[in-house]
Amino acid sequence: MASIRDIAREAGVGVGTVSRLINGSGYVSEDTKIKIENAMKKFNYTPNELARNLYHKRSGIIAVIVPNIVNPFFSEFVNHVETELFNAGFKMMLCSTTKENNAEHDYLDMLNRHIVDGIITGVHTLDIEEYLKMRKPIVAFDRYLGDHIPVVTVDHKKGGKLAAEALIRSGCKKVLHFKGATKVKSPYHKRHFEFDRVMKENNVETIGYDLDWNRFELCYMKKAIANVFSNEIDFDGVFGVDGLAIECMNEVIKRHKNVPEDVKLVSYDGTYVVDMVEPRLTVIVQPIQELAKEAVRLILELLQGKKYEKKSVVLDVELRQGDTTII
Amino acid sequence: MASIRDIAREAGVGVGTVSRLINGSGYVSEDTKIKIENAMKKFNYTPNELARNLYHKRSGIIAVIVPNIVNPFFSEFVNHVETELFNAGFKMMLCSTTKENNAEHDYLDMLNRHIVDGIITGVHTLDIEEYLKMRKPIVAFDRYLGDHIPVVTVDHKKGGKLAAEALIRSGCKKVLHFKGATKVKSPYHKRHFEFDRVMKENNVETIGYDLDWNRFELCYMKKAIANVFSNEIDFDGVFGVDGLAIECMNEVIKRHKNVPEDVKLVSYDGTYVVDMVEPRLTVIVQPIQELAKEAVRLILELLQGKKYEKKSVVLDVELRQGDTTII
Repeated sequence: MASIRDIAREAGVGVGTVSRLINGSGYVSEDTKIKIENAMKKFNYTPNELARNLYHKRSGIIAVIVPNIVNPFFSEFVNHVETELFNAGFKMMLCSTTKENNAEHDYLDMLNRHIVDGIITGVHTLDIEEYLKMRKPIVAFDRYLGDHIPVVTVDHKKGGKLAAEALIRSGCKKVLHFKGATKVKSPYHKRHFEFDRVMKENNVETIGYDLDWNRFELCYMKKAIANVFSNEIDFDGVFGVDGLAIECMNEVIKRHKNVPEDVKLVSYDGTYVVDMVEPRLTVIVQPIQELAKEAVRLILELLQGKKYEKKSVVLDVELRQGDTTII
Repeated sequence: MASIRDIAREAGVGVGTVSRLINGSGYVSEDTKIKIENAMKKFNYTPNELARNLYHKRSGIIAVIVPNIVNPFFSEFVNHVETELFNAGFKMMLCSTTKENNAEHDYLDMLNRHIVDGIITGVHTLDIEEYLKMRKPIVAFDRYLGDHIPVVTVDHKKGGKLAAEALIRSGCKKVLHFKGATKVKSPYHKRHFEFDRVMKENNVETIGYDLDWNRFELCYMKKAIANVFSNEIDFDGVFGVDGLAIECMNEVIKRHKNVPEDVKLVSYDGTYVVDMVEPRLTVIVQPIQELAKEAVRLILELLQGKKYEKKSVVLDVELRQGDTTII
């Protein structure tokens, strides 16, 4: 391959001039620019991006860390993030953390070692010590990691309220409520608190089912539902994320109960999987594409040097009426 | 931040010695190694990965290109690829191509510019000119891109045969057969050819439904199914990928027909979405995790300098009996 020296010789200029043009690091006259570009074409020369990045101290790569890529919520989120990053001229490195305990640490280390320019993290890590120390571009998704790290989330409190009201309207008396692990500090718990509060206020009994921390696989959800039915828990309403609501509905129907007459369901998230099952679920929809857009907008701002303290972007949720609750 | 010079001074050695240790580019005595490492700890020094990569001319990143990240087949594939790459010490850059026509070209360019060390591509691009020119590590998934690019695929011919036999056994007389765009050169067409051949041999009528090229979104599949029903196509059997089979089954049941009595279905792929719907689909299962393992194994071999000509890795498929065909 041709070197920068070959280009300089061919163009009749100094190596420094070629370097200035490639790196955009100083003035090069229009005439000289054309000479250098013609020389590059002649030698089919592509500047080594690693060398260029070293100069600019940026890699053009943003790491996106999620617990699980297969879970439809995260795959939709990641898909939109990648599109937004691509449009902004960045590439996406994708990391899932469920496979190893230290995978997250590994990715933070990449930020320190200049392999990535920033991180968007949707991981519900328990240990935030590492994050508190870091002063590099990080945006958190649904997770508090320290005052200096902006958070993108939705109005989970409203989500919990809408779900509770839909089940109350439908005449539920005893509702099964699937909850995430409350030991992590996340805005998403608000939906659980608000759901329980509204239910209590309306004298509707709730049975809380505590899910294990950071489990987003369908096989885990299937196990949780099997557990509910083997314990012969009695309920006439269900509130849980899409996968849990779908599994629960399937098991209810298998037992020759009717939806929504015998059991009412409200799911949370509104990913594409709810569009694959019948009857159509009543669902609290998170604006996943907008969440991705906001996360990317914030990371780009941080890259441009903007600083944030206690910044939260809170997007709206809405109830999409289906056939698993009664209007 | 401390520089390599600070480390050298603190350790009482030359800059070249520190560089040799960091880059693993030459002998450093055990005593000296300890001195340098202690100095690094003292200054909290992290070597700049960009500089190190420049030396080794590798970035430690593999790009994985798929048409769509949300489609469950690709999200499962990508998930396993990331795990395998992580275990081998590589990071994954993830790229989807449905968003832009020139996205794929962009990623090939990254390979030329040393941003990534290799590419695993599952994209069914029409234009393979660019690939034919490249002599860098590329592994193709379900796609022929030239003799020098190894292909990982499954025995699609067997898959088509198993599907046809299951529907024939179930007594089908008129089968709706969803086909991918045949204008791309891909091993997956073998399942369509073999399916039609076996059906013809057994005097079972097939109605071919040609899908548009490179469309993997659920909303497109919903449109195709709506199209089938609005044209009042008469059929008693269905063969298509998971999403199509699920959508078709939902529509059949909505019209008060019985599965499998009135309509039999066999789906292709066996992704997690088939585990979310009732009745349980009879499915031709692709070994997605094994496909990912083989793709990563091959790319690592290419990185180590191995050359392949006309290499195909063909994995087995199997029929998983469900409740949508009759034994």
